[in-house]
Amino acid sequence: MKELLAQRVNPDVSSALAGLFPKDPDPSAVTFAAGSPNEQLFPVKAVQAAFNTAIETQGAHLFQYQSSQGNLALRQKLVARIAKWGQVTTKAENIVLTVGGQQGIELVAKALLDPGDDIAVEVPTYIGALAAFDLYQPHYHAVPLQADGLDLDALEATLKRYPKTKLLYTVPDYHNPTGITMSVAKRQQLVALANRYNVVILEDTPYRDLGYESTPLPAIKSFDTEGRVIFLSSFSKILMPALRTGWLVADGDILQAILKVRLASDLEATGVTHAAINAYMDANDIDQHIAHMTTHYKQQRDAMLRGLAAYFPDGATYTKPAGGFFDWVTLPQGIDADQLMYDVISPQAHVTYVPATNFYPNRDVHNALRLSFSGLAPQTIDSGMHRLGDQLKAAIHAASPVI
Amino acid sequence: MKELLAQRVNPDVSSALAGLFPKDPDPSAVTFAAGSPNEQLFPVKAVQAAFNTAIETQGAHLFQYQSSQGNLALRQKLVARIAKWGQVTTKAENIVLTVGGQQGIELVAKALLDPGDDIAVEVPTYIGALAAFDLYQPHYHAVPLQADGLDLDALEATLKRYPKTKLLYTVPDYHNPTGITMSVAKRQQLVALANRYNVVILEDTPYRDLGYESTPLPAIKSFDTEGRVIFLSSFSKILMPALRTGWLVADGDILQAILKVRLASDLEATGVTHAAINAYMDANDIDQHIAHMTTHYKQQRDAMLRGLAAYFPDGATYTKPAGGFFDWVTLPQGIDADQLMYDVISPQAHVTYVPATNFYPNRDVHNALRLSFSGLAPQTIDSGMHRLGDQLKAAIHAASPVI
Repeated sequence: MKELLAQRVNPDVSSALAGLFPKDPDPSAVTFAAGSPNEQLFPVKAVQAAFNTAIETQGAHLFQYQSSQGNLALRQKLVARIAKWGQVTTKAENIVLTVGGQQGIELVAKALLDPGDDIAVEVPTYIGALAAFDLYQPHYHAVPLQADGLDLDALEATLKRYPKTKLLYTVPDYHNPTGITMSVAKRQQLVALANRYNVVILEDTPYRDLGYESTPLPAIKSFDTEGRVIFLSSFSKILMPALRTGWLVADGDILQAILKVRLASDLEATGVTHAAINAYMDANDIDQHIAHMTTHYKQQRDAMLRGLAAYFPDGATYTKPAGGFFDWVTLPQGIDADQLMYDVISPQAHVTYVPATNFYPNRDVHNALRLSFSGLAPQTIDSGMHRLGDQLKAAIHAASPVI
Repeated sequence: MKELLAQRVNPDVSSALAGLFPKDPDPSAVTFAAGSPNEQLFPVKAVQAAFNTAIETQGAHLFQYQSSQGNLALRQKLVARIAKWGQVTTKAENIVLTVGGQQGIELVAKALLDPGDDIAVEVPTYIGALAAFDLYQPHYHAVPLQADGLDLDALEATLKRYPKTKLLYTVPDYHNPTGITMSVAKRQQLVALANRYNVVILEDTPYRDLGYESTPLPAIKSFDTEGRVIFLSSFSKILMPALRTGWLVADGDILQAILKVRLASDLEATGVTHAAINAYMDANDIDQHIAHMTTHYKQQRDAMLRGLAAYFPDGATYTKPAGGFFDWVTLPQGIDADQLMYDVISPQAHVTYVPATNFYPNRDVHNALRLSFSGLAPQTIDSGMHRLGDQLKAAIHAASPVI
């Protein structure tokens, strides 16, 4: 019945998202692939208490149809939070609670994109963003990243060449997949560019609270004077993913369009979990919880950086993330990280990662990979990095010309 | 910034869904508009206990990223449930848990529809389905309802005339907005027609368990031999809406396409509530809860039917629903139910309903309205129907030619 499917669905190409979690039956397998948070850090008791508080306080009405925009008290807390940690001034009526950050991206794509529309994305970029944009069949323009974030000269060249570009997607804080953070100067310049070329910016910030060296930088949204920046964040990484609660800040016509497509998409998110998150934030200092988490994640990050220095071949270069979950490793040209993982490293060394192709809209970069340290204890990271480093050394050696 | 919005979003037309809940500050106002369930019937204590059971049993892992398809144990229960109450044979891997039934409709539209594709819908039909389909810019073909469901001769004429029609949307059980139920014979004939004309059927059944005269009929899906019927239901009406848990059954390429667009849309639904619903069904007989609810809803339905007989003018005809939440009232030609409500009935009598236009893709029927009895006590229904009936009598009298 393939002939009845929409063009946006290519039944012969499986979703890159679906391949993010390769399974290895070996119990000693180490996966650097999944970007899942460390569930040992989840505040289970406090969240259980918060569910009980929410249900006992609000009773039956909590379980009724509620609000397409989401729990008002929680939106008010988010207004205060983004003012404090992102220097963004907004109001509760500008916030929409979404089913994770993923739905936020999809709603923005749905509100803005017609088939063939030009959009600009950082490369490499978040796989799930490409999956969401793919649904709306855009024409992608890839803009490279530099050590301090998006290459703004390359972006401007793209905007000059494709003046109808509607949207730029960026992950400015502890970027997925590279760990790179955009400088404050570039944030400000980026908004000026967007104003000049009439582009909407989708600022996706699921990791912004997870810095291991410093507190969060001002959001790109804080420099927005025309309501063209959509700020998106989530509780998935700072609390728990299965609460499925993301949130976005938008203005004017864009906000109205997002609300309209949201209502048509699923009416509303899960009000019970919104109320539980709100009760959790009433009873607990979430920043204290985040500080507890970052202490652990920093140790994991450090174990990975030690492993990169100790075990990886000279031909491999890598980023040094100041926060978030990810490191990006670039191998010499000619090494295919995809083939290497599936043919050699996963079956022989029982280590997995996500190969670079998945992070590029045209799947045209092969000699790089993403490593996630978020879900693993430091000693597991050390052991996995040792095995992976040995394999990469062997692969690079095998690919080198014999003198 | 309207020029940057997608064509699917018309910023000048507000969503009909958003207007479903007109507010009246008068405390004696009676709203027959909202199709919300009666929250006095919500099993709050049992569901609270179920949340605690789920959290205590599964701990931190419950809050991790889980499964795009949704909780396996719950999907297995739904397999057994639809076998028993719908005579559908399926497997857990064919079930997808969605964010309410609304997301199920949107995912089907996303998986199947390109702009301009032909789709057939019953008229009148569910407002939210039109909102979801609108996102994918189809060409609608309206097929009238008869007392025993869809007019199959009219459907066949449509399919002959528009042979590329991809999808038929139907609510066969206690239909929203009319309360009509499709006969078993028509269910079987409908599948034969769909086979002949290569059409997918979306069978949307949020009310199928809420019969006041008999147990549910076999699902249309039970007659499906080619995997072209998508069965969709929800816990919103039989348990609680804010759990935001719907579910669908699909096969083959269609299932794969739905899973793909689901992953890209929001990764997964809220696993915590899935586990809570599963724990609720382990600890309670949900059919006993449904029987308790239908006893009350039947009293509410009966109060509305008594009110229709006692207070409504002779010129008004109405359906006699055997289940669900709704009654459909047709007024004489020339009476505009929309104008009447906003200009006269709401401000003067403080009674609201949903005018017919919202249920037609072309908004071209004006002399009818939907009344919902689901959220109101019998005595409130009686009082509201009395006030509404008096207003309709006056309106019909005023519109009649003077002899």
